[in-house]
Amino acid sequence: MGEFELLARVRERLAQPGARVRLGSGDDAAITVPRGATVTSVDALIDGVHFRREWSSPAQVGAKALAVALSDLAAMGAEAGEAYVVLGVPEDLDEDGCLELLDGMARVAAETGTTLAGGDVTRAPALTLAVTVVGQAERPEDLVRRAGARPGDALVVTGALGGAAAGLLLLEGSSPSDIDHPGGGSNSDALLARQLEPRARLEEGQALARTGATAMIDLSDGLGGDAGHIAEASGAALRIEASALPIAPGVTEVAEVAGRDPLELAVSGGEDYELLAAISPNRLATATAAVTASADARGDGEERLALTRIGEVVAGMGLEIRLPGGELLKATGFDQLG
Amino acid sequence: MGEFELLARVRERLAQPGARVRLGSGDDAAITVPRGATVTSVDALIDGVHFRREWSSPAQVGAKALAVALSDLAAMGAEAGEAYVVLGVPEDLDEDGCLELLDGMARVAAETGTTLAGGDVTRAPALTLAVTVVGQAERPEDLVRRAGARPGDALVVTGALGGAAAGLLLLEGSSPSDIDHPGGGSNSDALLARQLEPRARLEEGQALARTGATAMIDLSDGLGGDAGHIAEASGAALRIEASALPIAPGVTEVAEVAGRDPLELAVSGGEDYELLAAISPNRLATATAAVTASADARGDGEERLALTRIGEVVAGMGLEIRLPGGELLKATGFDQLG
Repeated sequence: MGEFELLARVRERLAQPGARVRLGSGDDAAITVPRGATVTSVDALIDGVHFRREWSSPAQVGAKALAVALSDLAAMGAEAGEAYVVLGVPEDLDEDGCLELLDGMARVAAETGTTLAGGDVTRAPALTLAVTVVGQAERPEDLVRRAGARPGDALVVTGALGGAAAGLLLLEGSSPSDIDHPGGGSNSDALLARQLEPRARLEEGQALARTGATAMIDLSDGLGGDAGHIAEASGAALRIEASALPIAPGVTEVAEVAGRDPLELAVSGGEDYELLAAISPNRLATATAAVTASADARGDGEERLALTRIGEVVAGMGLEIRLPGGELLKATGFDQLG
Repeated sequence: MGEFELLARVRERLAQPGARVRLGSGDDAAITVPRGATVTSVDALIDGVHFRREWSSPAQVGAKALAVALSDLAAMGAEAGEAYVVLGVPEDLDEDGCLELLDGMARVAAETGTTLAGGDVTRAPALTLAVTVVGQAERPEDLVRRAGARPGDALVVTGALGGAAAGLLLLEGSSPSDIDHPGGGSNSDALLARQLEPRARLEEGQALARTGATAMIDLSDGLGGDAGHIAEASGAALRIEASALPIAPGVTEVAEVAGRDPLELAVSGGEDYELLAAISPNRLATATAAVTASADARGDGEERLALTRIGEVVAGMGLEIRLPGGELLKATGFDQLG
């Protein structure tokens, strides 16, 4: 199957374009008529670097590539619009594999209201995906940047942390995959899903933006690193209480078997794609209600924490993550103000 | 040098953002406030597939990746806006190589008024670039699609053809690189530049859109294939006279040495990134004057043909390229109307 035929079969699988899209895939370029502010981000996923084909189905790879890209829009509080996909296909991925991958991506697109509006397919030495996502907001000032956290703000995270890192440990065989759920079932599937099928917290991001978040980032590299980006961009210090961190169910058990510290998985593991935001304490109740309502409205039945307060923004510059006894788990100062 | 440090050094090299850009590289996503219609296209270039590192300097690779992507905006008649770049770096490309590549891209960005507004850097098994370009026009209807060519329209191309294919023959060693220029110099450098440093015909595309082009495409795959896309999208037949094709200087000589037909290089070679447009014959003089003026205004001293009339649009469905004696060089019918 040549490039053109594959592209034609891809186009058949795409949903109807969104209202912004005047011309979708199949011409030299797509045409959209955006309103207000446009938000654009690009993310690449490469086999052997960001995923392993022996661990992930093609559908999971496609779904993860789009979700990871959309997570950056979530972190701005933007609404999803369009996605443009570069697919680099290695010799050992056949036509069915390509279409399965695009089906996985199309499923996430449908769930998030994203139009797959264009792309490019090429040969590549390893399975390569580069996804550009475009989102929108009414006005630029409705979007939440990394800069903007103010001393006195509360620090909150959506959902729970450490699940993706624990899922990776399960995949790496560092931990048996039959860990018992306290309630009788197993958390393994949920932890594997956190690693292999992350979700972008788009509704939560929009709810936080609407209710007054002053700074926001998605947790892709891990809380320790990503919180540092907010501190640096905002010119503030972030103080996080490790005891307050919401640890995903099953993480403690997996960490124990693997000889790891569950807090370390939550702080340094990365890939949870939850949101970290700063917000004035007097907006916290409103924000929590809005995040809860937006997650309920999504109606996917996923049970999860809305918002957890994990620390505060203080004057200064840097990041502290403090253990219950007062000991520092992580402390970073910054040489220069951002 | 880690990803963050490389990104920081990349940002230092970027020009001031354009007026549309409210937030450039360095946050979760870029923020722009576009006006009118937005045009978006994505292109991937991978070492061994689209270029060879032994033939191209990193700066040439970076420049070509952006130019090739911008060529799709040119083909819509759009003005360039922003570019977002995924750079997949193999182990044997060092920091200086990455920065040289980005300098090459930044040069094309500066020449074309494009803001490099974001990106992602990752490891990759082979040098990989995926470039998303975003352009604009006042209104969606100002943009020129592949569909729209009408029987009676003239077919025109910008510049000259076959140069990129002849440059490739020179690189492959099929032809000596010291072919004499009729005027005394050598065309080899110009032919190599057509292959290694193509330019997007942005001004020409905008001039053609403004003066009434009914359909347009950039010649990336070759006139034979790309003209077929216009025919299929427009539901029309394209009749091209091979004797009218503007052959780039030096192509005939390179073809002769390599035992190839210069017309074949012009028709099937691809990568010339000139524009093919359909336009009413009574707009042709205006369009030619506008293209000439726009190229003069660019002021890069590049001597080139403005527009050459190469054929016409007729009723029916398909593509004919006819030799001077009336013999068909290429004929394609389409089973189905698009």
